[in-house]
Amino acid sequence: MDQQDQWVPAMPGLAARARDAARALARSTTDARNAALRHAARALRERQDEILAANARDLAHSTTTAAFRDRLTLTPARIEAMAVGLEDVAVLPDPVGRVLAEWTRPNGLRFRRIAMPVGVIGMIYESRPNVGADAAGLCIKSGNAVVLRGGSESLHSARAIHAAMVAGLRAAELPEASVQIAPDADRRHVADMLAASGQIDLIIPRGGKSLVERVQREARVPVLSHAEGLCHTYVHAAADPDMARGLVVNAKMRRTGICGATETLLIDATVAPSLLPVIVADLAARGCAFRADARARAIVPGLPAASVADFATEWLDAVLSIAVVDGVDDALAHIVRHGSAHTEAIVTDDAEAAARFLNGTDSAVVMWNASTQFCDGGEFGFGAEIGIATGRLHARGPVGLEQLTTYRYEVIGTGQQRP
Amino acid sequence: MDQQDQWVPAMPGLAARARDAARALARSTTDARNAALRHAARALRERQDEILAANARDLAHSTTTAAFRDRLTLTPARIEAMAVGLEDVAVLPDPVGRVLAEWTRPNGLRFRRIAMPVGVIGMIYESRPNVGADAAGLCIKSGNAVVLRGGSESLHSARAIHAAMVAGLRAAELPEASVQIAPDADRRHVADMLAASGQIDLIIPRGGKSLVERVQREARVPVLSHAEGLCHTYVHAAADPDMARGLVVNAKMRRTGICGATETLLIDATVAPSLLPVIVADLAARGCAFRADARARAIVPGLPAASVADFATEWLDAVLSIAVVDGVDDALAHIVRHGSAHTEAIVTDDAEAAARFLNGTDSAVVMWNASTQFCDGGEFGFGAEIGIATGRLHARGPVGLEQLTTYRYEVIGTGQQRP
Repeated sequence: MDQQDQWVPAMPGLAARARDAARALARSTTDARNAALRHAARALRERQDEILAANARDLAHSTTTAAFRDRLTLTPARIEAMAVGLEDVAVLPDPVGRVLAEWTRPNGLRFRRIAMPVGVIGMIYESRPNVGADAAGLCIKSGNAVVLRGGSESLHSARAIHAAMVAGLRAAELPEASVQIAPDADRRHVADMLAASGQIDLIIPRGGKSLVERVQREARVPVLSHAEGLCHTYVHAAADPDMARGLVVNAKMRRTGICGATETLLIDATVAPSLLPVIVADLAARGCAFRADARARAIVPGLPAASVADFATEWLDAVLSIAVVDGVDDALAHIVRHGSAHTEAIVTDDAEAAARFLNGTDSAVVMWNASTQFCDGGEFGFGAEIGIATGRLHARGPVGLEQLTTYRYEVIGTGQQRP
Repeated sequence: MDQQDQWVPAMPGLAARARDAARALARSTTDARNAALRHAARALRERQDEILAANARDLAHSTTTAAFRDRLTLTPARIEAMAVGLEDVAVLPDPVGRVLAEWTRPNGLRFRRIAMPVGVIGMIYESRPNVGADAAGLCIKSGNAVVLRGGSESLHSARAIHAAMVAGLRAAELPEASVQIAPDADRRHVADMLAASGQIDLIIPRGGKSLVERVQREARVPVLSHAEGLCHTYVHAAADPDMARGLVVNAKMRRTGICGATETLLIDATVAPSLLPVIVADLAARGCAFRADARARAIVPGLPAASVADFATEWLDAVLSIAVVDGVDDALAHIVRHGSAHTEAIVTDDAEAAARFLNGTDSAVVMWNASTQFCDGGEFGFGAEIGIATGRLHARGPVGLEQLTTYRYEVIGTGQQRP
């Protein structure tokens, strides 16, 4: 309690410096921002030993699972990957200053909608220290200042990476306050960031469901995020059977732990008797387990029964929920009831059914005859992504450089007065 | 207190019905939505007597100022204007289904970013009953369901207008729950709407600063709004003197009560001695009062002194704050310190100075040689607006039909699996 009373929040000062830096970044040249990224990449490489030493300190205090330690661990290869990532972002097109629309009114006024940085981004992430470098790189490139708050377990690693980013900014003569980091591991910094309405313009959380849900619940600042990716692949009556088999296996099993992995298979009752047994066999041969509804179990005896909760579960593992449905509307009803508005796919040769499906979900990404695992900024051609958003405003789907911008209207006249 | 304990919130039920309606609206045809608007216009005209009677009940209970009563009062002409407004929206292009971007990746996947409705809009407004019809019209057109909450003083008027909108939906065979209204004047409905995260997708407040600031402060739902329009006109050293005189008079005096009215004149020290006296004389002749800084008062003796607070005041009246500045950066510093990120204008013949100014504010709208009074959806060519936004995400400036949409990605393949 005493400690609580004595809490001197760091965020107002950090955010105010970030605001000033953001204004300078917004006016900076593309070349200066790209130079900062390249200098930061060099600094990461030059400071490899310091970064590894900092990481070793974090690991020494880490007492959790092997998987957690793996995410926390930095290696020379992982540091090099961070550096290459920054250099890759440096060669992407500048998202700032794009003319998004222009038109002229009958009175001669010319209107232009111009992309500009959002301002100050708050990045809240967990154990993987590379997220700090990746996020800072995308923010610098898009002219945004960023306040980083990594997991308390990765504090020393995050600080060492932050120092390299600042060295890059300094070398490019951009404000060092463009990338800042919470000063210590106190969890109250997170609460302060979430409450920093007017100081931080946008919060992006990267991490597990519980972190993201906390941010969504508590933030008084706009958030771009997804809490989970409960993605569906729907095999329609008019699906090409071979395509359906290949897509379901890829969508479920290519990587089971990513948010774009399919968690539930919906299959039309008309084709399930012929197709579901071979799909199940394909997947079982690759080690997949199943949770199936009664209609699916009537077709493939021996499948474990699914509970209603199973259809609302993001497995992130080699497990597939299966339901037999009666056409597009039934599939859509299942998706609306159980889905997370992330990514859904239909497999069909029927263009009309596909159109009805694509237009019928609330989801950020809908696919026709493609694997849900393609929901990724790189696969979209964005070059890099800072996260994936399933909300309804500003940006949805992969959040890349363009999605880190907002816009202003420029109205250019010759002295027009409004009548 | 007992009453508080017994509160049975209406919002969850309203919002759930609105969600279902929104899904149906999102799939409805352009023709059906336009038909609903035209039928609603006819219903407003046919129900003129009922609407006026309802309005008379509201006026009978109204005990406030003449200005308030004027805003609350409906007349046959005002009802006709609402009906024409709906018909005007019916002929605008459909914002839903626009292809915002499309591209193909080397693997053959085709990507399309498609405009879709946001979902469920919450509209919180004050005394002017026509806002309900205007907002409902824009929401129906853009495929959004809307929950209306007007001022408690206009409850009967709002209900009568709502009934006409529902009649329009019914005649077009669209869900009646697409437009709903808070069931009574209880203020707790506002709090419930602001807390309806996940049920209402977007809140738009229309009204005075205190209403908008309350919504901004308390909402757990994204908000598009502006609390005030503290707009600046900056007369640069290279301004055409006649243009500057004309623009300042128009920007300040055309209508003093709108959010795009200029509240502060910034003028460069190099031209102030010659230009400020005539600008002041122009404005004084039209009844404008002044609050001037020391440098302005040294040039035009007798001007009343401005306090710092005056430069942060949205007068919405025939009052102008005046400050003398030293070039573009000084003007920008004043705007960043005191402005509301709404609309700012520079008057200059120097393209380089203009570019620096246009790129240097945080504001939603920046103008060059034009009157700030042009910040209006109609003047932008949007056909109609539901409000003006000064936040940084999703939409800024006038909020028209396009700004009431979000997007989804459609990814169209031929069986592509992710390697």
